[in-house]
Amino acid sequence: MSKIVKAIQDDYPDDFSYCYGCGRLNENGHHFRTGWDGDQTVTFHKPHVAYTAIPGFVYGGLIASFIDCHGTGSASLALHRKNGYEPGDGVDAPRFVTASLEVKFIKPTPQNVTLKAIGSVEEIHPKKFKVHTKVFADDVCCAKAEVIAAVMPDTFNDKG
Amino acid sequence: MSKIVKAIQDDYPDDFSYCYGCGRLNENGHHFRTGWDGDQTVTFHKPHVAYTAIPGFVYGGLIASFIDCHGTGSASLALHRKNGYEPGDGVDAPRFVTASLEVKFIKPTPQNVTLKAIGSVEEIHPKKFKVHTKVFADDVCCAKAEVIAAVMPDTFNDKG
Repeated sequence: MSKIVKAIQDDYPDDFSYCYGCGRLNENGHHFRTGWDGDQTVTFHKPHVAYTAIPGFVYGGLIASFIDCHGTGSASLALHRKNGYEPGDGVDAPRFVTASLEVKFIKPTPQNVTLKAIGSVEEIHPKKFKVHTKVFADDVCCAKAEVIAAVMPDTFNDKG
Repeated sequence: MSKIVKAIQDDYPDDFSYCYGCGRLNENGHHFRTGWDGDQTVTFHKPHVAYTAIPGFVYGGLIASFIDCHGTGSASLALHRKNGYEPGDGVDAPRFVTASLEVKFIKPTPQNVTLKAIGSVEEIHPKKFKVHTKVFADDVCCAKAEVIAAVMPDTFNDKG
């Protein structure tokens, strides 16, 4: 598997599809796309070379962003499936926000490689999911992470 | 205090000044700048409106990036001071990388506000510092974080 065909982000409601990381309607963003691979969640991304940490290696903030949206996307996939739906079914997917993000940078992440985030989702509350993620560059695990994602609270509807 | 006059990033060696977050030589990056305010470290940033989470609120990945570079910058400030130097002394500052990053998103972060990261630095090993950070939008604390930053290991000199 090297490409996400049916991504959960394609099924986010339009109003909630402007995320810089994963919003399909954000003209400037990364357009991360997350889908199922069996019972694991997967996101791919090849960072632009501008996202440098030290020359030759990917910026940690980009990796954190990748993990963040992979996390909320994975939680949405899991709740959507629990509700009886898969991406592409034509039903709006639930939108999550990040409650917390923890990233351990294991190895320097090389540039010019397509990164793969692989997640497993654990329900810790009916509206809160913990997503355990590993980020690989080829076969090397460069980062491990946990995201706690919560169903978007009403406070986000109060547009600033 | 509303601006960093003497930033530690101004004293990073040129080869290590291409970070997307804080490198003064990265043409595309954020150019985060971190300095002392007494014995606390401070970084300011007003995110571009493209860095959206949900319209009206700042993208969590941008906040994580801000905290990441504030963390490595704060660690560098602390070790530099321990070595007897302040930013602007004309001495290369030590370059840190992020070992781990933990962010708790407390409240939605409003757009169109200059964010302020305030850090306190704890030495946990001669080459490893823990930076405790709070991010404020005006007077509201929107995120709390811990970064463990380590003196850049030699593996980062092996350019990819």
